[in-house]
Amino acid sequence: MERRNTKVVNVGRVKIGGNNPISIQSMTNTDTKDIESTIKQVIELEQAGCDIVRLAIYDEKCIETIRVIKKYTSIPLVADIHFDYRLAIKSIKAGIDKLRINPGNIGSTQNVQKVVDAAKERNIPIRIGVNSGSIKKDIFQKYGNTPKALGESALEHVRILESLGYEEIVISLKSSDVLKTIEAYKYIAKRVDYPLHIGITEAGTLFEGTIKSAIGIGYLLTEGIGDTLRVSLTDSPLKEVEVGIAILKTLGLKQEGIEIISCPTCGRCDLDLLSIVKEVREKTRHIDYPLKVAIMGCVVNGPGEAKDADLGIAGGRGKVALFKKGEIVGTYPKERAVELLLSSIQELIDKNERYRNYPSLQ
Amino acid sequence: MERRNTKVVNVGRVKIGGNNPISIQSMTNTDTKDIESTIKQVIELEQAGCDIVRLAIYDEKCIETIRVIKKYTSIPLVADIHFDYRLAIKSIKAGIDKLRINPGNIGSTQNVQKVVDAAKERNIPIRIGVNSGSIKKDIFQKYGNTPKALGESALEHVRILESLGYEEIVISLKSSDVLKTIEAYKYIAKRVDYPLHIGITEAGTLFEGTIKSAIGIGYLLTEGIGDTLRVSLTDSPLKEVEVGIAILKTLGLKQEGIEIISCPTCGRCDLDLLSIVKEVREKTRHIDYPLKVAIMGCVVNGPGEAKDADLGIAGGRGKVALFKKGEIVGTYPKERAVELLLSSIQELIDKNERYRNYPSLQ
Repeated sequence: MERRNTKVVNVGRVKIGGNNPISIQSMTNTDTKDIESTIKQVIELEQAGCDIVRLAIYDEKCIETIRVIKKYTSIPLVADIHFDYRLAIKSIKAGIDKLRINPGNIGSTQNVQKVVDAAKERNIPIRIGVNSGSIKKDIFQKYGNTPKALGESALEHVRILESLGYEEIVISLKSSDVLKTIEAYKYIAKRVDYPLHIGITEAGTLFEGTIKSAIGIGYLLTEGIGDTLRVSLTDSPLKEVEVGIAILKTLGLKQEGIEIISCPTCGRCDLDLLSIVKEVREKTRHIDYPLKVAIMGCVVNGPGEAKDADLGIAGGRGKVALFKKGEIVGTYPKERAVELLLSSIQELIDKNERYRNYPSLQ
Repeated sequence: MERRNTKVVNVGRVKIGGNNPISIQSMTNTDTKDIESTIKQVIELEQAGCDIVRLAIYDEKCIETIRVIKKYTSIPLVADIHFDYRLAIKSIKAGIDKLRINPGNIGSTQNVQKVVDAAKERNIPIRIGVNSGSIKKDIFQKYGNTPKALGESALEHVRILESLGYEEIVISLKSSDVLKTIEAYKYIAKRVDYPLHIGITEAGTLFEGTIKSAIGIGYLLTEGIGDTLRVSLTDSPLKEVEVGIAILKTLGLKQEGIEIISCPTCGRCDLDLLSIVKEVREKTRHIDYPLKVAIMGCVVNGPGEAKDADLGIAGGRGKVALFKKGEIVGTYPKERAVELLLSSIQELIDKNERYRNYPSLQ
């Protein structure tokens, strides 16, 4: 997996593209005019690990919300704007860090010029966001509802900005069809070197949306495509962040906290594995010390399959074997499983200066 | 996505490989000796859409369970056996449809010959299942814990079976590391034309395991690799099947039932979208008529983004627009959203003879 080479743009304190970490975005689903609820959600998102938050800016009153949020937190904010270039300019003046607006949809070249001038002045990048629903008529007629149509639509918007000498650009090309989305990003990745914002749009409920997003975003990142991501779910935006983090961790693109590998249990299992896993997961959720912990039902595959793990247990005949880095270090009654895991994790954490002041796990 | 060309093997009524549908497998987590619980779970799995069920066969008493289950259902069964070749032969005699056993781990060539003879007689395929934990010492020393080591381990087992003239082979190469798993399957896919059983082992809890499995299995299927799959979760095997089905549906490899595409909601949304989506999902879960239904919070992207959908609604100012195949057909009070969706789905179902006798949706 070699990451695609891109330009870098600045979104407040976060850099998108190049070798910068893949940033996680989400979008508030409060009414943006409701300042109190919106700030609350922005702060919750930041605490959950979100790097950049987008707000729907749909009328004048939303601008005030940007101003107020900026007083409370430094998390980069994106204004999501459709059609109205004046809201874009006002958002920039209110302190927004990035715009999501399609220059081909805001009227005359003069309008676009005004937005670009304001963006240049404060070095605000613009995300061009093309979805299946916003493909222009002539392109749709030429290419149908295809990945190429998504790509060509984006390129049309790109050319408008480039013709005005503006290149602080991020591009997204989303469809609710995962394979179409993948093809569209492959298409654009070959043609420009702007950083890409990836995701599956209208992915659906937590269950289905998680699976669609994991497949689509996971595929693209594995191919080295994508510089910032948003998981789109018909659910709390906090869930979007949680899924985004899990995708990055799975691909080794974010190393934080305890990774638990655990077997699916089968007829050979004589531990209550699920409750052990749940308890250890719950009690270590606040830890960002990077550790791989294996919790295995039986000795058939247990220690062997968990060779990669820093520590783990494997069940068998009423007992559990505790192993560290693949070596068995002792055998104990199975009732002690959770305690053994937690104390062994604690021991490793204690060895590391940086993490020594965590609250004790037990 | 062109599917890799493979041999075809028969597992009872299911064919694996070639152009046959990607089959979904799971494994019971009851004690196999507990006949009643195991049969109950096998039947639940079959009803949930599982194509092939695996059982841990770890002693003589498990053989009786195979015999009894075979009287109650025709779902193909796989015996999961470690080391003991006699259990493999007894499983075949009891009516098992496939073995999962690694020929390099069952002792002398004579032992392997006996298993192969019994398998040949009833045309029972053998799955060679290599996991990170079961890489042989010499291969591990040569290649480390790498994708190549997984691949070469499998090839060693393959050569044992081929030398005995046996080619009814399925191969799996699982690791809990998604990228390593992907590389291992790519490695073996280039070297043999046996069908591949894909999955991520020890993927973890429902949340993390779903994401890991969706990324790994999704990537491989998108690349045309994989003929049967198992999602491995530390949770109910029924959940494994549910996730497997959702992965196949996402990639257009299984077309059944109502697919709901719905937006993530934002500050522009004035519908209680989540509850509408949940109610429609709940009331249409039993339907296997293939339909794409869009449920969108606002008119900015609504009908446009849902061009692909058979029908849908988009909210706005206390009303919902109902659209069919991208065309708005009417505007109604938003309280009627669920009723409109269900009656429109019903209408389409009623048009189709095959589905006419479904229980009414409302």
